[in-house]
Amino acid sequence: MNPMKIKPHRFKGTRDILPEDMLNKERLLEIIRRVFKAYGFSPIETPAFEYKNILEGKYGEESEKLFYRLAYKGGKKLALRYDLTVPLARFVAMHQNEITFPFKRYQIQTVWRAEKAQLRQGRFREFLQCDVDTVGTSKLTADAEIIALTVELMKKLGIKNTVTRINHRKLLKSMVASAGYSPNQEVEVLRILDKLDKIGKGEVKEKLTEVCGDKSKADKLLELTSLDFNNAKLSRLEGVDELRELKELLHAYGVPSHLVAFDFSLARGLDYYTGIVFETKLKRLEHIGSLSGGGRYDNLIGIFAGRQIPAVGTTIGIDRIITAMEQLKLMEDKKTLTQILFVDFDKPNLTRRALLLVSRCREEGLAVEFYQGRKGKDIKGQLGYANDLGIPLVAFIGDEEFRDNSVQIKNMQTGEQVIIPQENLVARVTELIKSLEV
Amino acid sequence: MNPMKIKPHRFKGTRDILPEDMLNKERLLEIIRRVFKAYGFSPIETPAFEYKNILEGKYGEESEKLFYRLAYKGGKKLALRYDLTVPLARFVAMHQNEITFPFKRYQIQTVWRAEKAQLRQGRFREFLQCDVDTVGTSKLTADAEIIALTVELMKKLGIKNTVTRINHRKLLKSMVASAGYSPNQEVEVLRILDKLDKIGKGEVKEKLTEVCGDKSKADKLLELTSLDFNNAKLSRLEGVDELRELKELLHAYGVPSHLVAFDFSLARGLDYYTGIVFETKLKRLEHIGSLSGGGRYDNLIGIFAGRQIPAVGTTIGIDRIITAMEQLKLMEDKKTLTQILFVDFDKPNLTRRALLLVSRCREEGLAVEFYQGRKGKDIKGQLGYANDLGIPLVAFIGDEEFRDNSVQIKNMQTGEQVIIPQENLVARVTELIKSLEV
Repeated sequence: MNPMKIKPHRFKGTRDILPEDMLNKERLLEIIRRVFKAYGFSPIETPAFEYKNILEGKYGEESEKLFYRLAYKGGKKLALRYDLTVPLARFVAMHQNEITFPFKRYQIQTVWRAEKAQLRQGRFREFLQCDVDTVGTSKLTADAEIIALTVELMKKLGIKNTVTRINHRKLLKSMVASAGYSPNQEVEVLRILDKLDKIGKGEVKEKLTEVCGDKSKADKLLELTSLDFNNAKLSRLEGVDELRELKELLHAYGVPSHLVAFDFSLARGLDYYTGIVFETKLKRLEHIGSLSGGGRYDNLIGIFAGRQIPAVGTTIGIDRIITAMEQLKLMEDKKTLTQILFVDFDKPNLTRRALLLVSRCREEGLAVEFYQGRKGKDIKGQLGYANDLGIPLVAFIGDEEFRDNSVQIKNMQTGEQVIIPQENLVARVTELIKSLEV
Repeated sequence: MNPMKIKPHRFKGTRDILPEDMLNKERLLEIIRRVFKAYGFSPIETPAFEYKNILEGKYGEESEKLFYRLAYKGGKKLALRYDLTVPLARFVAMHQNEITFPFKRYQIQTVWRAEKAQLRQGRFREFLQCDVDTVGTSKLTADAEIIALTVELMKKLGIKNTVTRINHRKLLKSMVASAGYSPNQEVEVLRILDKLDKIGKGEVKEKLTEVCGDKSKADKLLELTSLDFNNAKLSRLEGVDELRELKELLHAYGVPSHLVAFDFSLARGLDYYTGIVFETKLKRLEHIGSLSGGGRYDNLIGIFAGRQIPAVGTTIGIDRIITAMEQLKLMEDKKTLTQILFVDFDKPNLTRRALLLVSRCREEGLAVEFYQGRKGKDIKGQLGYANDLGIPLVAFIGDEEFRDNSVQIKNMQTGEQVIIPQENLVARVTELIKSLEV
C-alpha cells in the first residue's frame, strides 16, 4: 500500500453522523419501532436500488430529476430509491401470493434525492425514512389508524406543539373543478397549491392565475380551500363525508382534537395519492417542513400487481425530526453509554486481573471499557479520556488492590473514591450507576 | 397516473426481506448492539457513497472491480461503499479533532459488491455489515478485546460450533520470505494462500509453484504454515511473540480456548491488514464462509490523516450469520409480534368502542390490531387472518358485549373463549400472553 496522503473529503449534501448524534438517533428509532409494533406493523426491507422503470412515472416530473442513477449499463437501468412507497408497491406485487392481506408493514431504510441540501431545514441528499403502510384495504379505520399512530409517535418522541393537517385529494380535485379549472390543469394546480407553505398565498395566487390567465378562478379556488368544515357549500363536494367520518374515528382512537386540523388547501407533493392526505409540522419551527406526511394511494400498487390493491400509509422523516429536536434542545448529549472505565497500569498481572473483572461486569450487562489508549499513558491522561467521554465511573486495580483482591472506584462527578472487594464489584457498580441516574 | 401494468422485477443478487426474516434480523441486531455497547463501542454512520479516490487502492485489484459506481459525472466520481473500514478511515481523518482517542466505534450499515450472488453461501450483492473498531491504539489488549467480543457475540446469538482462527500478517510475511519468495511476490502469494479454504491444499500448491516456477518454495511455505505453535522454528520469525501474548490476553478475557485456533496459513483477503488477522467460521457449515473477520490495520487511516493512526477491528457479517442460522434451524418463525386482534363488526358504535380499547391496550405496551381488511369480512375470514399470522388472541365486542361493557377473548391456540369486563382487558390480556409464552 502506498503511504501517500489522500485528502479526506465527502460528497456534498451527505453527512457523517458522530456518536453523540447516533446515540440519539438509535434511541429515537427504538421508540419508533416500539410504536410501529404496538400498532401491529411488521418490518420488511427492499434493495437500495430498483430498476428505473419501477420508479419512473410515479412521483411527478420534478421528483424524477432527483434520482441517483447507477453507472451500470450506461446509467439507463438502475437508480437508488427515492422513497419507500414505490418499492413497497413493487414488493407487494411480487410477493402478493406469500403475504397475508391486509398487509401491515413498516420499513426503516435510507433514500436518496439529488437535491440541494439545506442542513438547518433538515433536508439532506441521503436520509432515513420510517414508513408504515396498511396495504389491501379501503377502510377508513386504516387511514385513521395511521394518523393516530403519527400523533402518538410525536408524543412518545417528546415533541410537543405539532399539528397534523388533513385533507382529501377528492375534495381538493372537486374544488379545482368547481373553481373552473379543466381536468388537464389539475396536476399543475395541485403542484402550485402544495407550495402554499413555502411561497405564501400571494405568490400562489399569481401562479394559479398564470395557469389559465383567469384571476377569478384562482380567487375562487383559494376561497373554497379556506372554507370552514361546517360550511354548507362543502357538502356538495366529493370527499367531505369521508373527512367527517375520519374525524369521528380519530376521536375514537383517542387523538386529541387540538393536534389535528382539517386544511382544504393541503395538497402533498406526490402524484400517487388518491384519497385522504396528511402531514405533521411543528408549530414553532415552520422552516423545517413536515416531520411526517402520507395519505391513501389506491392505484399505485395496481400498476405492478395487475389488479387494484388499495393502500394507506405515512413516512416519518426521522432525520428531519432529529434536526427539529436539536433546534428545540430536546437531544441528550452523551458521547458513549460506557458506565465504567478500567485504568491500564501496563503490568501483565494487573492487566489480566482487570480484564477478568471487565468480562465479569460485561456478562452482567454493564457497559465497560478497559483503557485501550497508548501503552504507558499516565493515570491523569486516562481520567481525561473518561472525562472527555463523560464516563461516570473509573476503576483502578493497582499493586495494592491486586494484593488485597480489592478495586478502587472513582466517581467522576463527585470525585469520591471507594475501595471495595473485587467480588462485590458488579453489585456495587450497579448501585452507583443507579444513584447517578436519579 | 397511467394505470398500465409494469412487470414488477428486482435486480439480480438483491433481495426483499419479508417480515418473518426481518423480525429475526431485528432481534439479532438488538443483541449485536447490546454486545457492542457492553464493550464500550459507540455508533457512527457514513454516507452510502464515497468519492472513488477514497475507496481506490485500499482493498486490492480484485475487489475494486466490484464497486458499484454512480452515473454522476460519467461514473468517474462516486461509488457505493464496499465495506465500512475505508469509510471509517476517511471519517477518522476528517474528524480527528472532534473525536476522543482511542476511538471505539461501531457501525451497522449496508455495503454493495458487484459479485456473483450465492444465496446458499449467504453471499449477496447488497448486505449489512456490523463493524467494531478501536482506532488510535497499538495495544494488543485492543486486538484481544475485538476477538473476545466476536466469540461472546456468537454465543449470545446462539451459534455454537464456531472456531475463530487467528494469525499474524507479520508472521505470514516472514514465512513467505523464509520460503524464498521475493518481496514483490508477497501480495500474490498471500492472495493464493487466502483461497486455501475454497480450493484446497493441492491447488494452492500448484498456484504457489506457478508464482516462481519453483515447487520447493511452495512446499517450504506450506510446511511453515502447518507448524505447531510450540515449534522452535517459529521463534525466529516476526509476530510470534505477539501471538503468544495475544493467547494469554484471550485467556484473561475469559475466551474459551477451544473456540480459537492459531492457524499460520490464514491470510485474509484485504490488502490493508498489517498485524493480527482473524476470522470466525462454523465448523458444521464450511460452505458458508466466514461469519466475521478482521484484524489490525495500522497504515490505512494514515493515508487520509497524514499521520499514522493504528487501528484494529472486525466485521460481523449479519446476513451470512442469518443464512447460517436458517440452515441450522435456529430462527424463529413469527410473522408478526401482534398479540391480540380486535374483530371488526362493521357497525359504527361497535367500531368506536373497539378502537377505544385498542388504544388503551397500546398505551399499556401491548401490540394490538383492529382488523383492517375488507369491510364486512365475516368473522371466519377475520379469524383466518389471525391464524395466518399466528396472532395468539382475538377480541370480540359484538352487540351483546357492547351492552354489557364486556369483551370476549378467544385463545387461538386452545380455542378457549372467555368473557371479561372491558375494564379488566389490559390486565387479563397481559396474563394470557404470559401464560402462552411459558
